[in-house]
Amino acid sequence: MNNIIWIVPILGIVGLIIMAVKSSWVNKQDAGDSGMNELAGYIAKGAMAFLKAEWRVMFYFVLIAGILLAYSGTLVETSSPVIAISFVIGAFFSAFAGWIGMNIATKANVRTTQAAKTSLAKALKVSFSGGTVMGLGVAGLAVFGMGILFIFFYNMYVIQTGGDVNGLEMITALEVLAGFSLGAESIALFARVGGGIYTKAADVGADLVGKVEAGIPEDDPRNPATIADNVGDNVGDVAGMGADLFGSYVATILASMVLGREIVSADQFGGIAPVLLPMIIAGIGLIFSIVGTLFVRISKETDSVQKALNLGNWSSIIFTGIAAYFLVAYMLPETMVIREYAFTSMDVFWAILTGLIVGALMSIITEYYTAMGKKPVLSIVKQSSTGAATNIIAGLAVGMQSTVLPILVLATGIVVSYTFAGLYGVAIAAAGMMATTAMQLAIDAFGPIADNAGGIAEMSGLPDEVRGRTDNLDAVGNTTAAAGKGFAIASAALTALALFAAFVGISGIDSIDIYKAPVLAALFIGGMIPYIFSSLAIAAVGRAAMDMVQEVRRQFKELPGIMEGTTKPEYEKCVDISTKASIREMILPGAIALIVPILVGFGFKGVFEDTSSAEILGGLLAGVTVSGVLMGIFQNNAGGAWDNAKKSFEKGVLINGKMEFKGSEPHKASVTGDTVGDPFKDTSGPSMNILIKLMSIVALVIAPHIAVKDHAIQADDLKQEAKELVVDDQGFVKGEK
Amino acid sequence: MNNIIWIVPILGIVGLIIMAVKSSWVNKQDAGDSGMNELAGYIAKGAMAFLKAEWRVMFYFVLIAGILLAYSGTLVETSSPVIAISFVIGAFFSAFAGWIGMNIATKANVRTTQAAKTSLAKALKVSFSGGTVMGLGVAGLAVFGMGILFIFFYNMYVIQTGGDVNGLEMITALEVLAGFSLGAESIALFARVGGGIYTKAADVGADLVGKVEAGIPEDDPRNPATIADNVGDNVGDVAGMGADLFGSYVATILASMVLGREIVSADQFGGIAPVLLPMIIAGIGLIFSIVGTLFVRISKETDSVQKALNLGNWSSIIFTGIAAYFLVAYMLPETMVIREYAFTSMDVFWAILTGLIVGALMSIITEYYTAMGKKPVLSIVKQSSTGAATNIIAGLAVGMQSTVLPILVLATGIVVSYTFAGLYGVAIAAAGMMATTAMQLAIDAFGPIADNAGGIAEMSGLPDEVRGRTDNLDAVGNTTAAAGKGFAIASAALTALALFAAFVGISGIDSIDIYKAPVLAALFIGGMIPYIFSSLAIAAVGRAAMDMVQEVRRQFKELPGIMEGTTKPEYEKCVDISTKASIREMILPGAIALIVPILVGFGFKGVFEDTSSAEILGGLLAGVTVSGVLMGIFQNNAGGAWDNAKKSFEKGVLINGKMEFKGSEPHKASVTGDTVGDPFKDTSGPSMNILIKLMSIVALVIAPHIAVKDHAIQADDLKQEAKELVVDDQGFVKGEK
Repeated sequence: MNNIIWIVPILGIVGLIIMAVKSSWVNKQDAGDSGMNELAGYIAKGAMAFLKAEWRVMFYFVLIAGILLAYSGTLVETSSPVIAISFVIGAFFSAFAGWIGMNIATKANVRTTQAAKTSLAKALKVSFSGGTVMGLGVAGLAVFGMGILFIFFYNMYVIQTGGDVNGLEMITALEVLAGFSLGAESIALFARVGGGIYTKAADVGADLVGKVEAGIPEDDPRNPATIADNVGDNVGDVAGMGADLFGSYVATILASMVLGREIVSADQFGGIAPVLLPMIIAGIGLIFSIVGTLFVRISKETDSVQKALNLGNWSSIIFTGIAAYFLVAYMLPETMVIREYAFTSMDVFWAILTGLIVGALMSIITEYYTAMGKKPVLSIVKQSSTGAATNIIAGLAVGMQSTVLPILVLATGIVVSYTFAGLYGVAIAAAGMMATTAMQLAIDAFGPIADNAGGIAEMSGLPDEVRGRTDNLDAVGNTTAAAGKGFAIASAALTALALFAAFVGISGIDSIDIYKAPVLAALFIGGMIPYIFSSLAIAAVGRAAMDMVQEVRRQFKELPGIMEGTTKPEYEKCVDISTKASIREMILPGAIALIVPILVGFGFKGVFEDTSSAEILGGLLAGVTVSGVLMGIFQNNAGGAWDNAKKSFEKGVLINGKMEFKGSEPHKASVTGDTVGDPFKDTSGPSMNILIKLMSIVALVIAPHIAVKDHAIQADDLKQEAKELVVDDQGFVKGEK
Repeated sequence: MNNIIWIVPILGIVGLIIMAVKSSWVNKQDAGDSGMNELAGYIAKGAMAFLKAEWRVMFYFVLIAGILLAYSGTLVETSSPVIAISFVIGAFFSAFAGWIGMNIATKANVRTTQAAKTSLAKALKVSFSGGTVMGLGVAGLAVFGMGILFIFFYNMYVIQTGGDVNGLEMITALEVLAGFSLGAESIALFARVGGGIYTKAADVGADLVGKVEAGIPEDDPRNPATIADNVGDNVGDVAGMGADLFGSYVATILASMVLGREIVSADQFGGIAPVLLPMIIAGIGLIFSIVGTLFVRISKETDSVQKALNLGNWSSIIFTGIAAYFLVAYMLPETMVIREYAFTSMDVFWAILTGLIVGALMSIITEYYTAMGKKPVLSIVKQSSTGAATNIIAGLAVGMQSTVLPILVLATGIVVSYTFAGLYGVAIAAAGMMATTAMQLAIDAFGPIADNAGGIAEMSGLPDEVRGRTDNLDAVGNTTAAAGKGFAIASAALTALALFAAFVGISGIDSIDIYKAPVLAALFIGGMIPYIFSSLAIAAVGRAAMDMVQEVRRQFKELPGIMEGTTKPEYEKCVDISTKASIREMILPGAIALIVPILVGFGFKGVFEDTSSAEILGGLLAGVTVSGVLMGIFQNNAGGAWDNAKKSFEKGVLINGKMEFKGSEPHKASVTGDTVGDPFKDTSGPSMNILIKLMSIVALVIAPHIAVKDHAIQADDLKQEAKELVVDDQGFVKGEK
C-alpha cells in the first residue's frame, strides 16, 4: 500500500489539534459575573446529567449489540468478530464528539454573553469559535477514526493474507470497518431522537405553564423548567445535530469505499485509489473547513453576521471543489468500470461537484420556505387572521409544498451523479457534499450557543444593548438552523442511497424489482415506517411535556417563594424529568429502526422461491428512504415556517391592511401553530435522518449473512473480470470484452 | 365466443331495472310540507347547478382529450382511434351515474325527513333506498358498459380478424376498452377533487361566519352559505364517492382482464375464461348486492340501524364469495400459467377471497381509529384539555399511527394473492373486493342522505322526536362514512396495483429495478406528488372558504333583513362561489395527475441507454401509489378522529376526573382540530384515491406508445409459449418446458 493513506489520520489529528487550540482560547475568555456563571453552571450541569444518563443506557446497548455482532462475525467468511471492536470504537468516538460539543457549547454560551458587552464582533468570534470546536471535533474524530481503522484492517485482512484488493479479503476489511459506522449511527439515534424528545418536552412544558398559566416571560429564572429548556437547546441542536452529521459523514465515506472496492482500477496505489479517494477528500475538506473559518469575522457593529458566515461556508466549499479536481486527476486512472458502467476520472470529479451543488441548493431551498418575509411564511401569517385552524392548515400546506423542489434537486442529483460515474458517482457525490461537514457543523452549532447566550443575558437582566447583540446573533442562528436542517436531511438521503447501493453490492443481488409482489409489499411497509416513527416521537413529546407541566405546577404550589424570587426553583428535578422521558421514549422507535431490517433480512430468507430476502430488504429500504425524506422535509419545513410566522409578529406584520403585533388575535393563533410545529421540526422531522441511515447501515452490516451469492464466487467473478479488463499496459480500462 | 359473455350486460340491465323501480318508489314517498320542499328545492337546485358547471368544463375536457386519444390511437398497431369513443362513453356513463346519485339523494333527503315523522324504520327504508339507487346506478352502468363494449370490441378486433385471443388482436381490444376506464376516472377527478373542494369551502365558510361571527347554529336557514353546505354533502359524499368507486370498479375489472389475456388457458370459452371471469364476478356481485339490500331493515324503534346495515353488507359479501367458488370451478381450467407462474383455478378463488377479506379488514380498522369511545379518539379528547395545539398534535399522531395496520393488511394481501395466482391473483383479489360495490355505495350514500334529512329537519324546526330519528341515522352514517373511506382507499390501492401490473404487461418491460438510478429518482418524484397534490387541495379550500366568508359577510351587511328572518338570503350566490371555486381550483392538481405520466413516459423515451421510459414510469407509479395510500389513510383518519373527538363533547367526556361538555375550553380546542381535519378528510385525503388510480390508468393507456418490445414480437412470444404449453389434451397446463 502506498503511504498516501497515512495522510488521512494525520489530517484528522491536525483537525483535532486546531480544535484543542480553539477550545482553550474559548475557555480563556471572560465568563462574566457570578450570577451569569451560576446560570451557566446549571445549564452545564443539566447537559452533563443528560449525557451521563444517555451513556449509562448506551453502555448496555453497546455491550449487548457488541456481543451479538462479535458472534455474528464468526458466522460468515466475509466478516469477523473484530467488527464488534470497530463498533465499540465508533460508538465511543461519536459519544466523545458529542461530549466535546456539549462541553464547549455550555462554556461558549456564557462567554458569548460576556463578549456581547464589548462588541458584536467579539460575541461572534466567541460563539463561532465554540461552533468551530464542535465541527472540528466531529470531523477530526471521524477522519482520524476511519483512517486509522482502515489502515489497521487493510493490513490485517488484505496485506498480511496477500489477499485481493477487489476480492474477498477487501470485503472483509470494509465489512469490519462498517462496524465503526454502525456504532456511530447507533449513538446518533440516542442523541438525535432522545435529544429531540428532551428539548421539546422541556420547551413545550416550560411554555405551557410558565408563559400561559403563570404569565412569566420566556427564559425567566423563576420558571423551574427554564434550565431544562436551555439544556435542551444544547442537547438537541448541538449534540443531536453533531451525532447526526458524524453518522452521515462516516457512512458516506464508508459506502463510497465499499463501492470503490468493486472498481478494478489500474492505479499507482495498488489498485485501491477509488477506495482511498473518499477518505482523502474528507481529510482535505476538513482542512479547507479550517481555512474557511478564518473568513468568518466582522469588524463593525453594522456588518452582516450572515454574510460573514456565508463567506466562510462558500470559501470552504469552493476550495474543496478545486482541491477535489487535482486529487481526482492525481489519484484515479483515466478510465474505470463499475458493474459494467465505464467512466473517467473527470466524471468522478463532476459527480463530487454535483454533490456539493445539491447540498448548497437544499440549504437555500429550505431557507426560502422557512424564512421571514418570504411568500410561504407570509401565507401562514395571513391565514392567522382567521384563527388557529387556518394558520395550521396553511402551515401544513406550506410543509407539503416545500417537498417539491428538494425532491427534484435530489432526484436530479441522483441521476446526474449516476450518469457521470455509476453508483460510485452517487456515493462519491454524497461524500463530496459531506466533505465540508466541519464547516457546516461550526455554523450549525453557533446557533444554539448564541440562543443560550441570549437566554443568559435575559435571565441575568443585562442591558438592552447586550441583549440586542445576542438577539442579532440568535436571529442569524435561526436562519442557519433551518438551512442546516436542509443540509442534514439531504446528507441523510444521499447517505442512505449510498449505503443502499453498497448493500446491494455486498448482498450479491443485482436488481431490486418492485414488480415482484414481496418487494412491492416491502416498499409499502417501508413507506409506512416513517409514519409510525413520527407518530411515536410526536406522542412521546406530548407525554413528556405533560410530566413537565405537572412538576412545574407542583413546584409553584409547594414552593410559593419561587414566584416572589426568594426561593430557587428545583431546576434539577425538571432536568431529570426531561432526561428520563427522553431515554424511555426513544427505546421503541429506536428498536423499530434497528430490528425491522434484521427481521426482514433473516425472516424472509428462503421464503419466496424467486425473491431473496436481500431483495425484499432492498424494497423496504427504498420505501423507508423515500417516505422518510419526504416526511422529514415536510415536518422540518412546516415547523420552521410556523416558528417564523409567529416571530414575524414581533416586528409587526400587515394583514388585510392592518398592522398586527405580539399579543393580537392573529399572533395568538400563530403561537398555536408554533407549538404544533415544535415536535415536527425538532423531534420527529430530524429523527427521519437517523431512521433512514440507521436502517440502511444495519442492512449493510447484515448483508453478508443474507447474501444470495457466495462471496468466494463473487470475488472470483470480479477477479475474472479484472483479468479481462487489465489488458492495456498503460492502465487504461476500455470496458469489458 | 361462448354466449356466457352476454350474461354481463344482462346482469347490468337487471341492476338498472331494479334501480329504476327503487327510484320510482322513493319518488312516490311523501315529500312533506311546502317549507321542507322549499329547502329541499334549494339544495336540489344547487346540486344541479354544480353538476351543470362541472359538465360544461368536462365537455371541453372530454372533447380535447378525445381528439388527442383518437389521434394517438392511429400511431400504434395495438390501439385504435376507437379508443376515443370508448373514452367518451366512459366519461358519459360516469357523469350519468353521478347525476342519478345526486338526483335521488336530493329527493330522498326530504322524504327521509318526512318519513322520520312516522318511524325510524320508515326513515331508514327511504334513506337506504336512496343509497341503493345510487349503488345500483353506479354498478349497473359499469357492468353494462364494460360488458357491452367488450362484446363489441372483442368481435371487432378478435373474432372478425380471426385474431389470437392471447395475442396482438386481444391487446388492441383491451387497450380500446381501457378508454372507458380512463373516461370514468377522469370524471371521478372532477367529482372527487372538485366536489371535495366544493363541500369544504362551503362548510368552513358557513362555520367561520355563521357559527363564529354571527353566533347562529349550524344549518340555520338565515346563513346564506347553509344551502351550499348541504349541497356540498351531496356533491362530495354522494357524487364524489360514487364516481370514485365507479372508477375503481371499472379499472379493477379492466386490469384483471388485461392480465387474464396473458394466461394461455385451455377452457371451454375459447381460451378467454380468465378475461371473462372478472366481469362475470362483478355481475354476480351486483345481483348479490341487491339480495343483500333486502336484509337492511328494522322493525322497532330500538333496533340497531348499524346491525341492519352490517347484516346486509356481510350477506352480500358471503353470497358473492360462495358464488365465486362455483364460478371459478365452472369457468377456469384446473391449472394455468401467467408469466411462468403456475396456479390452479382454486388458487384464483382463494385470491378472490383474500380481496374480500382485505376490504372488510380495511373498513374495520378505519372504523376503530375514527370511532368515538375508542382509544385513538379518546387520546385526542384528553389532549384537548391543554388547548388546540396539543389537540392537533394528538390528531396528527393518531393519523400517522393509523397507517400501520392498513398497510400491513394491504402488504399481506398483495403477497398472499400473488402467492395464490401470481399477478392475476393480485388483480382478481381487487376485483373480488370491488364485487359488492353496489352494496358498499348504498351504505355510503345513505349517510349524506340522512345528514341532509337531519339538516332539513333542523331548518324546518321539526319536533325533537323527528330530529332524534334523523340524528340516529346520521350518527350511523358518520360511522359508515369512515368505514367507506377505508374501503375506498383500499380499493384505490388495489386498483392502482392491478393497473400497475397491467401496465407492465402492455409496455413489455419485465422488471422495474429501483436499483437503477433513473428509476430510483422517479420513485422519489412519485412519492412527492401526493404531497404537492394535497398541498394544492388544502390551500384551495382555504382560498375558496375565504371567498365564501366575504360573500356571507356582504349579505349580512347589505341585507339586514336576513338576521331578522324577514329577507331570504341569496343562497344561489354562495352556491355559485363554491361551484366556481371548485372548478377553478381542481385544474392544477388534475393537470398534474394527467400530465406527469405522459411527460415521463414520452420525455424519457430513449434518454437512458439501459433504462426504458416505461421502467422509469413504473418507478414513478410505485412512488405515487405507496406515498398516496399512506397520505390518504393518514389524512382521512386524522380528519375523522378529530371530527369524532369534537363530537364526543356533545354527550360529555371525562377528562382528568372532570366532565367536559360542549362550550367548554377543551371543546373549543377540539373545534379547531375538527376544522383542520375538514380538508384532510373530505378534500385531500379522498383525492389521493383518484390521484393514484388516474396516474396508473393514464400510464396504461400510453403503454403501447412507450412499449420497449414490439407487440407483434410479444404476441409471437406468447403464441410460441402457448404452443409449448397446450400439449396436454385434457387441457392441463403443466408449466413451461
